[in-house]
Amino acid sequence: MVNIQFAEEFYMANEALKHFRPTQASIPPREVNYRLQLPSGVPVHIHALNPLAFLLRAAQVYPNKLALVHPDVPHPVIYSYGVWTQRIQNFAYALIQAGIKPADRIAIIAPNIPAVAEAYHGVLGARAVLCAINTRLTHGEVAYILEHSESKLIFVDHEYTHLVKGAKVPVIVINDTGREDDPYEQFLTSGRKFSGERGWPGLEWERDEDAPCALNYTSGTTGRPKGVLTTLRGSYLAAIANAYETGMGRDSTYLWILPMFHASGWCYPWAITFAASAQICLRSVSYPHIWHHLLNSRVTHYCGAPTVQIGLINAPQARRLDRPVHAIIAGSAPTAHLIGELEKINIIPIHVYGLTETYGPSTKCYYQPHWMSLSLEERAKLLARQGHSFATAEDARVVFQPKEGDSPDAPLVDVPKDGKTMGEIVFRGNIVMKEYFKDPEATRKAFRGGYFNTGDLAVWHPDGYIAVQDRSKDIIISGGENASSLAIEQELAAHPDVLEVSVVARPHPKWGERPMAFVILHPQKAAKWKGRHAEFEQDLKKHARGRLPGFACPEWVSVVDELPKTSTGKIQKVQLRKLVAKL
Amino acid sequence: MVNIQFAEEFYMANEALKHFRPTQASIPPREVNYRLQLPSGVPVHIHALNPLAFLLRAAQVYPNKLALVHPDVPHPVIYSYGVWTQRIQNFAYALIQAGIKPADRIAIIAPNIPAVAEAYHGVLGARAVLCAINTRLTHGEVAYILEHSESKLIFVDHEYTHLVKGAKVPVIVINDTGREDDPYEQFLTSGRKFSGERGWPGLEWERDEDAPCALNYTSGTTGRPKGVLTTLRGSYLAAIANAYETGMGRDSTYLWILPMFHASGWCYPWAITFAASAQICLRSVSYPHIWHHLLNSRVTHYCGAPTVQIGLINAPQARRLDRPVHAIIAGSAPTAHLIGELEKINIIPIHVYGLTETYGPSTKCYYQPHWMSLSLEERAKLLARQGHSFATAEDARVVFQPKEGDSPDAPLVDVPKDGKTMGEIVFRGNIVMKEYFKDPEATRKAFRGGYFNTGDLAVWHPDGYIAVQDRSKDIIISGGENASSLAIEQELAAHPDVLEVSVVARPHPKWGERPMAFVILHPQKAAKWKGRHAEFEQDLKKHARGRLPGFACPEWVSVVDELPKTSTGKIQKVQLRKLVAKL
Repeated sequence: MVNIQFAEEFYMANEALKHFRPTQASIPPREVNYRLQLPSGVPVHIHALNPLAFLLRAAQVYPNKLALVHPDVPHPVIYSYGVWTQRIQNFAYALIQAGIKPADRIAIIAPNIPAVAEAYHGVLGARAVLCAINTRLTHGEVAYILEHSESKLIFVDHEYTHLVKGAKVPVIVINDTGREDDPYEQFLTSGRKFSGERGWPGLEWERDEDAPCALNYTSGTTGRPKGVLTTLRGSYLAAIANAYETGMGRDSTYLWILPMFHASGWCYPWAITFAASAQICLRSVSYPHIWHHLLNSRVTHYCGAPTVQIGLINAPQARRLDRPVHAIIAGSAPTAHLIGELEKINIIPIHVYGLTETYGPSTKCYYQPHWMSLSLEERAKLLARQGHSFATAEDARVVFQPKEGDSPDAPLVDVPKDGKTMGEIVFRGNIVMKEYFKDPEATRKAFRGGYFNTGDLAVWHPDGYIAVQDRSKDIIISGGENASSLAIEQELAAHPDVLEVSVVARPHPKWGERPMAFVILHPQKAAKWKGRHAEFEQDLKKHARGRLPGFACPEWVSVVDELPKTSTGKIQKVQLRKLVAKL
Repeated sequence: MVNIQFAEEFYMANEALKHFRPTQASIPPREVNYRLQLPSGVPVHIHALNPLAFLLRAAQVYPNKLALVHPDVPHPVIYSYGVWTQRIQNFAYALIQAGIKPADRIAIIAPNIPAVAEAYHGVLGARAVLCAINTRLTHGEVAYILEHSESKLIFVDHEYTHLVKGAKVPVIVINDTGREDDPYEQFLTSGRKFSGERGWPGLEWERDEDAPCALNYTSGTTGRPKGVLTTLRGSYLAAIANAYETGMGRDSTYLWILPMFHASGWCYPWAITFAASAQICLRSVSYPHIWHHLLNSRVTHYCGAPTVQIGLINAPQARRLDRPVHAIIAGSAPTAHLIGELEKINIIPIHVYGLTETYGPSTKCYYQPHWMSLSLEERAKLLARQGHSFATAEDARVVFQPKEGDSPDAPLVDVPKDGKTMGEIVFRGNIVMKEYFKDPEATRKAFRGGYFNTGDLAVWHPDGYIAVQDRSKDIIISGGENASSLAIEQELAAHPDVLEVSVVARPHPKWGERPMAFVILHPQKAAKWKGRHAEFEQDLKKHARGRLPGFACPEWVSVVDELPKTSTGKIQKVQLRKLVAKL
């Protein structure tokens, strides 16, 4: 059996890479010292937690193992852990040469290319803070983030240079070629030169594990985006949990579908190095590329919102895989239909939940063995819940929301575990952000009662599983009753002709609000309903009446070709509400 | 397929337990709050690391899953995570009722019974420190440890009460019955009553993760035993590493062969709860019992020194297992013969290395995939090395030993990675003890150069793997050459008629020292050499000459029936040296 985990074998086994060999020029000398200089006076028995440690260890144990491959570009690159770690060292020195000081912010705007994965580690080598910016933002939004973060240096992919036009700090363009004449490669080379071959011992290990690690701006559906500041300690513990909870190890290969810029890529840049897994970059996240790698590159893990999974199972290339692949699903709960379809092609859904403020995923719907004997629908209902906190996270809770006039220090009270009483999910502990950067007021508000208040409404089931009902702003108040838009969507998605559905509140003269559903028809069923959308509407409403209480049945159904989505594939209900407001 | 991970199914599947059902009386109420009270003023984003968290989480996610079973006693017990966690809460309250204050030491002397596993968690609930004492010590040695540790309370198994005769602090006897009239059970019951059903929120979470966790006395071959003090933070990170590095998870079952009292049971009491695995206690560690569970109880993991593994493969019950079982091997390096025999019966050796001062194991011989294509002998040679540090540990190093007159602060210098130059293994970081309790002088000496100095001599191979050559005191200086007793043993063990061998230095008028080998013959070969030991000696010497340099060939060979061993199965060379001194 060819083991693609090792660079030599990988490019032999992979069609797209057959003609490419890792650059030998920068292979590090045999005796590499992977230990950074320790700050003075640290106790023998304490080493500040820092996810950079994972990379250094992977390089030490598996120098020749495949670390990263970037195959679907004109100039593919492939790096072993030994070579890749040297590139990251160069990155760190180049930052220092550029005058970057500890805690300075470094911005990067790029798709899922090697430079971003390198930045997640290289920035830590210089004790700086990475601010990865969403490529879908406008020039104005990017300008706001660059200014608010006070970024001292900007890395930008050649396709997105328009987003940083007029920036007042140095910009380094990444042509994504891996070739000598690439400005980004020149930057790395300058770092190597500047290092004077001092290696890792020429850099200093950050003394304080509570020091900032990354600054991630939330999409911010209302007002300005907020900067979520994470710590080295939190990133270290979150990365371990992500690797452990999804079963990643030395033989795993992670495919970059989820944007690397989103919530530190859910900490997978470090989960991958903790596990010494391989990673495949994808400049353009298209289904043909994804399927090519699922079929040919021995992918074992990827992350994605349900909408990504829906696209995946409906792509023409879709077929049963010859080994199990773990799909880490978050953003919204997978439907029974989706779970069934994924299982059919040997993709194992792992349902996780979290927010940018919790380092991405921090709960998992832990699979109980006796669920195996349940029907798909029963099982899917259980699997659609958000579950319990990760192994290294503190307990998530569901608490009563504050009442008018409550003190912000009032102790939080758990809702009963009855599967009915609605409350708000709150988190605390090592996998919660340190603060909203330069926004103590927002931090204070978010940290009411000594917990991070998510704004997600949920019930707590008798078996201890948390189940999100809705974002508090997505709840539909219909005739005085709270209708969960998520619960309605779950039921509508069970209609055999529905591919994807989103439900929002629409004002109603009598009931205050009523649900309105936006539906994408299944491609194979679109023809059936062509020109008969009114009939489909009746059919879907009938389907809903059999499954939902009257106040939760959609009053309006609109068949659409696509739904507005964020870069991670989350449906933007704020856009749907704007649409509704114009009706 | 019957899944034995769940209590109901376990005792149905297990002959020995068929007639026993978990006690329902103490099953906790449905809505258990597993959160201890937080100390005031802790930041929202930090929660002090503490391995007690793993148990609480396992109980929350899998309340009905099998946690612990104790089958081979007149009164077997079986606990689900929900029930077991309630027992541990009772333990904590009972300690507080008994006047135990944070950081007080609690002693326990017992074989691998449930009470010890409970103590490892219950003591943390009361913020106290567990001092588990070796059952093989003499009354005098135990008295020294009780006095030095200033233990405030002693738990003792009914078989070992003679060891604590005359103790000046309260003693609680464990009859190991799990029945109401057992003094230990009465202790737990008193805790439950004292709690007034305040539950976990009536206890306080330790604010300082650098607080002591356990106090483990080293066997101390010379002088008084030293008390190794570990921390909550270290135990938390070591437990995660042990679970991750050996692939433990929800479906794993750990068999207690290794004494629980040895170096906090190598942190497995917490690795098991981190992974939410099941554990099987063994009061009497006999091969028939071990084989019964390997064959019938779906064991997936156990720890043991090579000598335990040798006994295991040579037991009459030995046969090929129907699923892979992971044997975590430490104490000394497994020989090629042993690795081959284990693999034949589907036992996968995981070779780890560490000391009491490093929380038990803290390096692993990471398996490189290309080793698969090597011959057993080549592979075994590579696997016999100690490898690299665990995922959450800092780098182990091999450094030049201090020269006469060197300052204790002199920076340590790595030996070249040439596989030849001998140096000393040193460790630092989160998986190193805090100190030798009440012995600042010994601590200072052990922490020379800002690292823990192990006293183990090793070489560093070009592939970055560390390979122990010997304890510094076990090196044989023969004609000015350093001969590694371990290397000699490895070669002698390759003789087909040798079951086990140990080599020590014996004074020699001409060469200073020469190696003397103590050999146990393979049971099937003992008859062949009966009354012909002198011939066997010649045969073994001939074997040695073909494989070892002259100065390393044994000058004397003694065939013996058994070798002196510690409770973990490590051969006590100090006893052999005493024997040699009398020759």
